[in-house]
Amino acid sequence: MVYKKITLIGTSTDGFDDAVAAAINRAEHTLDNVLWVEVEELGVEVATADPREYQAELTVAFELED
Amino acid sequence: MVYKKITLIGTSTDGFDDAVAAAINRAEHTLDNVLWVEVEELGVEVATADPREYQAELTVAFELED
Amino acid sequence: MVYKKITLIGTSTDGFDDAVAAAINRAEHTLDNVLWVEVEELGVEVATADPREYQAELTVAFELED
Amino acid sequence: MVYKKITLIGTSTDGFDDAVAAAINRAEHTLDNVLWVEVEELGVEVATADPREYQAELTVAFELED
Amino acid sequence: MVYKKITLIGTSTDGFDDAVAAAINRAEHTLDNVLWVEVEELGVEVATADPREYQAELTVAFELED
Amino acid sequence: MVYKKITLIGTSTDGFDDAVAAAINRAEHTLDNVLWVEVEELGVEVATADPREYQAELTVAFELED
Amino acid sequence: MVYKKITLIGTSTDGFDDAVAAAINRAEHTLDNVLWVEVEELGVEVATADPREYQAELTVAFELED
Amino acid sequence: MVYKKITLIGTSTDGFDDAVAAAINRAEHTLDNVLWVEVEELGVEVATADPREYQAELTVAFELED
Amino acid sequence: MVYKKITLIGTSTDGFDDAVAAAINRAEHTLDNVLWVEVEELGVEVATADPREYQAELTVAFELED
Amino acid sequence: MVYKKITLIGTSTDGFDDAVAAAINRAEHTLDNVLWVEVEELGVEVATADPREYQAELTVAFELED
Amino acid sequence: MVYKKITLIGTSTDGFDDAVAAAINRAEHTLDNVLWVEVEELGVEVATADPREYQAELTVAFELED
Amino acid sequence: MVYKKITLIGTSTDGFDDAVAAAINRAEHTLDNVLWVEVEELGVEVATADPREYQAELTVAFELED
Repeated sequence: MVYKKITLIGTSTDGFDDAVAAAINRAEHTLDNVLWVEVEELGVEVATADPREYQAELTVAFELED
Repeated sequence: MVYKKITLIGTSTDGFDDAVAAAINRAEHTLDNVLWVEVEELGVEVATADPREYQAELTVAFELED
Repeated sequence: MVYKKITLIGTSTDGFDDAVAAAINRAEHTLDNVLWVEVEELGVEVATADPREYQAELTVAFELED
Repeated sequence: MVYKKITLIGTSTDGFDDAVAAAINRAEHTLDNVLWVEVEELGVEVATADPREYQAELTVAFELED
Repeated sequence: MVYKKITLIGTSTDGFDDAVAAAINRAEHTLDNVLWVEVEELGVEVATADPREYQAELTVAFELED
Repeated sequence: MVYKKITLIGTSTDGFDDAVAAAINRAEHTLDNVLWVEVEELGVEVATADPREYQAELTVAFELED
Repeated sequence: MVYKKITLIGTSTDGFDDAVAAAINRAEHTLDNVLWVEVEELGVEVATADPREYQAELTVAFELED
Repeated sequence: MVYKKITLIGTSTDGFDDAVAAAINRAEHTLDNVLWVEVEELGVEVATADPREYQAELTVAFELED
Repeated sequence: MVYKKITLIGTSTDGFDDAVAAAINRAEHTLDNVLWVEVEELGVEVATADPREYQAELTVAFELED
Repeated sequence: MVYKKITLIGTSTDGFDDAVAAAINRAEHTLDNVLWVEVEELGVEVATADPREYQAELTVAFELED
Repeated sequence: MVYKKITLIGTSTDGFDDAVAAAINRAEHTLDNVLWVEVEELGVEVATADPREYQAELTVAFELED
Repeated sequence: MVYKKITLIGTSTDGFDDAVAAAINRAEHTLDNVLWVEVEELGVEVATADPREYQAELTVAFELED
């Protein structure tokens, strides 16, 4: 078995849990076998977003098909 | 005074705040003098958990009795 | 354009999202051009706070006036 | 020349060298120009694997075609 | 909105600014919405390159289409 | 569910895989629910060991009983 | 003697050397005793800047007056 | 041979050497085979301590009995 | 409550404890509510100082007034 | 007693244990008092080596003669 | 084959590319087989240098003769 | 001007300041132009040393002759 990891940044105006969920949802939309997720960075965009945009950078691990 | 730090991973299906609280509650169940907690890692278990399991790795500092 | 970054620690008894918001609100109270925020550390004060105090250490980037 | 790096996790029940080889083999199966590999993390899955599963997280560098 | 980050290594015989530009140019050749770039590592290949080859490892963030 | 992590250093005169196995075996000798292991450091003791002693520092995660 | 360090981000459309110079110039505009500068991060803003904006995050050390 | 590492924080009003010694003394009070100590963090508590309290966070390695 | 952190470098010809104290003293000279201090780096200036100058880079946390 | 540390990269076509041994053997060939070794990085050269070349970057500590 | 890595700091009043080149040139002056170079730190000396001195700390890898 | 950095570990039974001084003294014994020193690690050897041996790992920067 070989796994692959990619890096996504989820965003939400509601908070970090939602930002994380947004990225996982996107990953599961195109990938069949999402295994786990690690949070790499959390941040908030203030100037160009109203209301503030919570951002969560994640690495997403999934199983490669043979 | 000498303090000790241990590493716990709290889990929750509700979000990261709850996962952190789960680990602190467990620490206070067996330790009298929990002082503070530092978040070391946040992650989400997707494949083997339904619904998703939020995980928070913490170091917990407490006071050692003389 | 030159930006500056400062380090603030926001606190809340409600959770990490609120602790982050508290620090951003404080920053915007005294600074006109807050651009973005990066979360550096998350922690919880247990011993000296009842209820527990969630803490979020942030770097806040803002635009310097000419 | 521009190179790209991706992150793979190879697994093996025999040891870390084999886990690394598994990921490189998989990379060469789909990529023509694998250049080098850096080991990012080593771990062992114990609870859900019998026998134990050695895991090696690698970044794999390869040449992009023009 | 969900963003993705990939890792590219640009190269140039002229210097680091050019190596960075080479990787960004390549990214924009195949991606519509490159947002920003972070420099992860700088290096120089000496033995196998004449003249010396400046290398810049970057993470490139871009917007995923819905 | 709350997990705990401890740090062990396994040793072997045969190589790193054996040093890792030594620490996991020790952990399973006293703990019922070892889940996974992360390699933190690898080293070799040369001066005070003949033959050389391979050392692997691991964090071992296990499930706490309720 | 006590020194202080602050964090500035210089920007330039010409390259990283200029971005660094922009931040040092700004620092010397308001501070009498700039001693040295450390580069913390390099990046490029692509989407919202045309031409691309090179950014250099620096810590600037200066002498505090008594 | 398998070693274990734990994390202690020693404190002293006299300085960092004493804070380190306090943690080692405590470790040797309950552990027979303390091998070595690594300093992880140094800090000073100012607000809640008079005089100031020097703190040294250490990892303490010791030999596990068979 | 919101805290702020700044970075100071204290110096002394006597040793690191004194260098740390010099920075804390300076901080308390201008700030009412210094809470705690973290040591970030220790170094010694040799060439341009006779006798040698011990340097301690600290982050100093203090309470912001409302 | 004062020790010195140098950085070597050992290589082998057989695996990481051999790559580590190659660097230690080389160190002992020219140094009398090798004390211990820390593994800093592991990698594999694929493109320019056939068969693949395992590489282990080590820091080697040894005793300086008076 | 065993490689060695040393750490040099190149300096230049013209910019970082020149500071890097200065260190590589120096390395090749005394070493026959310089292989590659990694940039570890970039900085600028302001107070004691007029004009400003750009500094680049590099690790230089070269092949050891048998 | 090109500088070089080497890594030394000074030891002392008296404390960390002395361990640092031991390494600087040794460096100045063989090198004419020691410029500055950075502390990389602090530790204490307990098992094989009586009394305890304080250890300070330093990088020492010095000027290379032309």
